[in-house]
Amino acid sequence: MSPHRSKRPWQGQVEDLPGDNRPEYDPQCYLCPTNKRADGDINPDYKESFVFVNDFSALLKDTSQQEFNEDELFVAETERGICKVIAFTPRHDLTLPEMDQAAIKSVIDLWQKEFVELSKVDWIKYIQIFENKGAIMGCSNPHPHGQIWSQNHLPVEIQKECVQQQQYFNKYQRTILSDYVKAELRKEERIIDENDSFVSLVPFWAAWPYETMIVSKRSIQNIAGFDEKEKTDFAAILKLLTTRYDNLFKTSFPYSAGMHQAPVNDGDHPEWHWHMHFYPPLLRSATVKKFMVGYEMLANPQRDITPEVAAEQLRNCSTVHYKAK
Amino acid sequence: MSPHRSKRPWQGQVEDLPGDNRPEYDPQCYLCPTNKRADGDINPDYKESFVFVNDFSALLKDTSQQEFNEDELFVAETERGICKVIAFTPRHDLTLPEMDQAAIKSVIDLWQKEFVELSKVDWIKYIQIFENKGAIMGCSNPHPHGQIWSQNHLPVEIQKECVQQQQYFNKYQRTILSDYVKAELRKEERIIDENDSFVSLVPFWAAWPYETMIVSKRSIQNIAGFDEKEKTDFAAILKLLTTRYDNLFKTSFPYSAGMHQAPVNDGDHPEWHWHMHFYPPLLRSATVKKFMVGYEMLANPQRDITPEVAAEQLRNCSTVHYKAK
Ligand SMILES: O=P(O)(O)O[C@H]1O[C@H](CO)[C@@H](O)[C@H](O)[C@H]1O
Ligand SMILES: O=P(O)(O)O[C@H]1O[C@H](CO)[C@@H](O)[C@H](O)[C@H]1O
Repeated sequence: MSPHRSKRPWQGQVEDLPGDNRPEYDPQCYLCPTNKRADGDINPDYKESFVFVNDFSALLKDTSQQEFNEDELFVAETERGICKVIAFTPRHDLTLPEMDQAAIKSVIDLWQKEFVELSKVDWIKYIQIFENKGAIMGCSNPHPHGQIWSQNHLPVEIQKECVQQQQYFNKYQRTILSDYVKAELRKEERIIDENDSFVSLVPFWAAWPYETMIVSKRSIQNIAGFDEKEKTDFAAILKLLTTRYDNLFKTSFPYSAGMHQAPVNDGDHPEWHWHMHFYPPLLRSATVKKFMVGYEMLANPQRDITPEVAAEQLRNCSTVHYKAK
Repeated sequence: MSPHRSKRPWQGQVEDLPGDNRPEYDPQCYLCPTNKRADGDINPDYKESFVFVNDFSALLKDTSQQEFNEDELFVAETERGICKVIAFTPRHDLTLPEMDQAAIKSVIDLWQKEFVELSKVDWIKYIQIFENKGAIMGCSNPHPHGQIWSQNHLPVEIQKECVQQQQYFNKYQRTILSDYVKAELRKEERIIDENDSFVSLVPFWAAWPYETMIVSKRSIQNIAGFDEKEKTDFAAILKLLTTRYDNLFKTSFPYSAGMHQAPVNDGDHPEWHWHMHFYPPLLRSATVKKFMVGYEMLANPQRDITPEVAAEQLRNCSTVHYKAK
């Protein structure tokens, strides 16, 4: 944590601002309704959200199970999976914060439905729901969409969270995130928004300048456990957080976001507490990002602003989107 | 590992090519000889390399030692350190591969000297020598330079390598990297270059498309242990690797690179084996990078080309720099 670093003048790379005048429908877009995709399929004339198997899936369903271990030095195993794409809305020109709450709720309904369906595939052990937003985050199509990658092993980040949550739960019989959220609500230093079911905050351990989390108040293992009220509350806090993000630098705020949740087809996981991470790349403005390079890649993350200042800035942002008339 | 992914057409962000016609001397550059720096100091008229304390150091020497732990949920301690900048050459227009081997050797001499000097500061426990090359890697000044951050705790990446190297050493009384390098030299699938003292290769576990490592053949704990012959051989292999990199996409190849070495002021570390990591962001061309986002940040690294193909491509690159006449 080196808050004094933000005093240094920035002479490095400045990003191009992405164009902000997309049409409602783009005949070239492979996600817009009725258009043709890479594999020749025609998208339906969908009215809410729409899901399909990624035409360029990283993980494939029919990868055969193999593994090898040569002297503990060369260790590998194959990975099977299903990769899906979810278009959040037929409108090419919107993003989550610009959609109304009911439309966001319908995305959440679909996330839940897909999660439940994929959990029924017995070899799937983990389901990663995420969104890359903005060209700067490697998103190759501006049509609002997310992805779901499901697979037959636990990814490394999930393995780490399994260990830490289990350790805490064994000791206290409570999830670490339920205690953490209670403590943050008492402190009120890093909280952004709160409703009956969820809290959004800048975590104490944030690495990215405007990194945030949405955490459920109840210890829910995964999105399948959300009831109707929770889905509505999740839509509300998701709209608030993403609106504040866009208003921070008056730009369509880029990020990678995704839910971390309990493994599936693996019994009960009372230690697991559903949460969603947001990792945005920007630091100083819409065009100057935080470079997680050099020292950060080789040694340790290093922050240029405190989580408390980041939370305050986000709290001070309007909850009315800057583009709304 | 999803090599089939490279078939997908890229419609995402394309980087600007950085200008490639810098003058030998730039009166605005704070690293060029005789120029004034941010803090008012005047650079000497240096003829080889030049080192100074970073005017915007992330880690400060006089940070007082404090720590707290609230219910195992809020844990923090302060970090003291010294951050230095090394200009590799007085020439504003060069980069490592364009410098002659003797000039690279003089940078290595300075790295070694600085490492030895910083190790004498009794509270310093780790010394991170690294280079961010290219605007795309957050480098804010194109004058060829690197950094040295030294500090009073072990960074997380080093802690992990300590544990793994110790485990292997306890079991076999050999460093894991000496056995690994021997196995790679036998296989010849991922080797790029080899000389008497060093090997460069694409590691079996590489995450970035053109990630590489330089590893010493001898189990040397840190750069202080390099003899004259090793410093010359290191200069040779560093010039070869960075030249191949530049030739790969006919561009000044961006990367973050840095040495991992044993902690200092902490006794003997026979398990530690000096090595240098190179993490380059490019995937398809000089302007299309690999985005480590979404799935990668939340779950697991995912590769688009195999390490064997990456090594072959680098081996096939000329060892004469494309800009050399
Ligand atoms: O100190 P520099 O080169 O200006 O800054 C660069 O390297 C640092 C160390 O890797 C990073 O923390 C910064 O984000 C990056 O922009
Ligand atoms: O599948 P997309 O959105 O085209 O690709 C993007 O997201 C993937 C999953 O996070 C990454 O592996 C790619 O590097 C990135 O460009």
